[in-house]
Amino acid sequence: MPNAQNAVTACVLIIGNEILSGRTQDINLNHIAKTLGNWGIQIKHCRVIPDVEAIIVDTVNEVRGEFDYVFTTGGIGPTHDDITAVCIAKAFGVEIIEHPDIAVRIRKRPAPDDIMASRLLMARVPKGATLIDNPSGGPQGFAMENVHVMAGIPSVMQAMLSTLEGQLKSGPIIRSHTVRAFTGESSIADALAKIQQEHPDSDVGSYPFFRDERYGTNLVIRGADIDQLQQIAKLVMAAVTAIGETPEDLGLDADS
Amino acid sequence: MPNAQNAVTACVLIIGNEILSGRTQDINLNHIAKTLGNWGIQIKHCRVIPDVEAIIVDTVNEVRGEFDYVFTTGGIGPTHDDITAVCIAKAFGVEIIEHPDIAVRIRKRPAPDDIMASRLLMARVPKGATLIDNPSGGPQGFAMENVHVMAGIPSVMQAMLSTLEGQLKSGPIIRSHTVRAFTGESSIADALAKIQQEHPDSDVGSYPFFRDERYGTNLVIRGADIDQLQQIAKLVMAAVTAIGETPEDLGLDADS
Repeated sequence: MPNAQNAVTACVLIIGNEILSGRTQDINLNHIAKTLGNWGIQIKHCRVIPDVEAIIVDTVNEVRGEFDYVFTTGGIGPTHDDITAVCIAKAFGVEIIEHPDIAVRIRKRPAPDDIMASRLLMARVPKGATLIDNPSGGPQGFAMENVHVMAGIPSVMQAMLSTLEGQLKSGPIIRSHTVRAFTGESSIADALAKIQQEHPDSDVGSYPFFRDERYGTNLVIRGADIDQLQQIAKLVMAAVTAIGETPEDLGLDADS
Repeated sequence: MPNAQNAVTACVLIIGNEILSGRTQDINLNHIAKTLGNWGIQIKHCRVIPDVEAIIVDTVNEVRGEFDYVFTTGGIGPTHDDITAVCIAKAFGVEIIEHPDIAVRIRKRPAPDDIMASRLLMARVPKGATLIDNPSGGPQGFAMENVHVMAGIPSVMQAMLSTLEGQLKSGPIIRSHTVRAFTGESSIADALAKIQQEHPDSDVGSYPFFRDERYGTNLVIRGADIDQLQQIAKLVMAAVTAIGETPEDLGLDADS
């Protein structure tokens, strides 16, 4: 992966049995990766783990020292299977407390005592945590040192994450330039390998696809230097042309 | 998670920078989880890792002893960034060889020497590997002991995986029974916790969602014993009714 120098890195932890069982298709990793990428933070690792205390605690402790940031999604609701906050407290060896600012927000909506008691479980954060605001109106998320804890519902997670813009340290923003070719990868493999060898600061990837009954591949150059990306893209286009195919220049930061 | 007894477990490794950068939305984990779930194999863990040799080798060695099976997707094409086969060989400490059966299939489609040489990179497997057939017609995947190595393109991965039906050991098949309620989770949190406590062999989960401008939650009971699932579902329905809401019984194995 490009630009290890000065890179700011992150790990995403997707917490939830429902992702591992196949009941729910995760879309949070993709959103976090795109958003943080635009902020100059590169996701280098992701784990999907079950709602099991020992696993969550051990995983958080394993990854929080290895990456600049950790972002978790899931398990911060009010039911018995929402154990993320307690696990983060255990991982850091601190007690869990009811955060007054979250409690205020929760109490604004009246409810019978037993329901309020359940709802207030969402006010629990590890002692020393700071809050991550929740523009969707519900209880806030929190950060404990470099670990950012967010909701699992995509719209709520996205709202929480948006409030962190400008709050995190950042490295170079990695851009991409994509060239599409309807050719088998083998036809250009040698040329691509040569281009990669000659440009170690950028990352030249080939991502094959099958669409409209045809195989093709997206040739994606990634790196921090846009001028260099465009130079490499020209070489890639020439390599595709050299084998008699017509490359399609999708340009900068194409989703393709 | 339910039914640890006799459970057959698996870990999925999604190998590819394009997933971590956010360029590509992974859908392979979800398909593998659903398919293996129906075969009596539970996914307990998933990691998304970059195309970096040391990371792939270390990760494979870390997880292959911890789970009954490991399934990888991605990185078995013919370009310089396709390093999975080499990494698996290194993880097992064996040499990489050209498998004659894959080479035969590759050579069936004629090509100039240099393109054929690139294509034949897809015939490389660790010495001792067995093949995973590829009904989509391309080069086969392979298994090295309990590690199953498949393509990253979803349609190709799905074709490869389908050939393993009946070939793997299996445990109890975990079924689900879903009850949907348009209520905040807090309103039923206590009742759910009580139901979970009284039925430790099943897993009672609450998965909130936001849809049509309303919050709701899918109450999902998972376990191997369908009769027990239905009994628990009745208790959950009653708990929702008790708070004045109308539960919706989505029944067995609902996608919801």
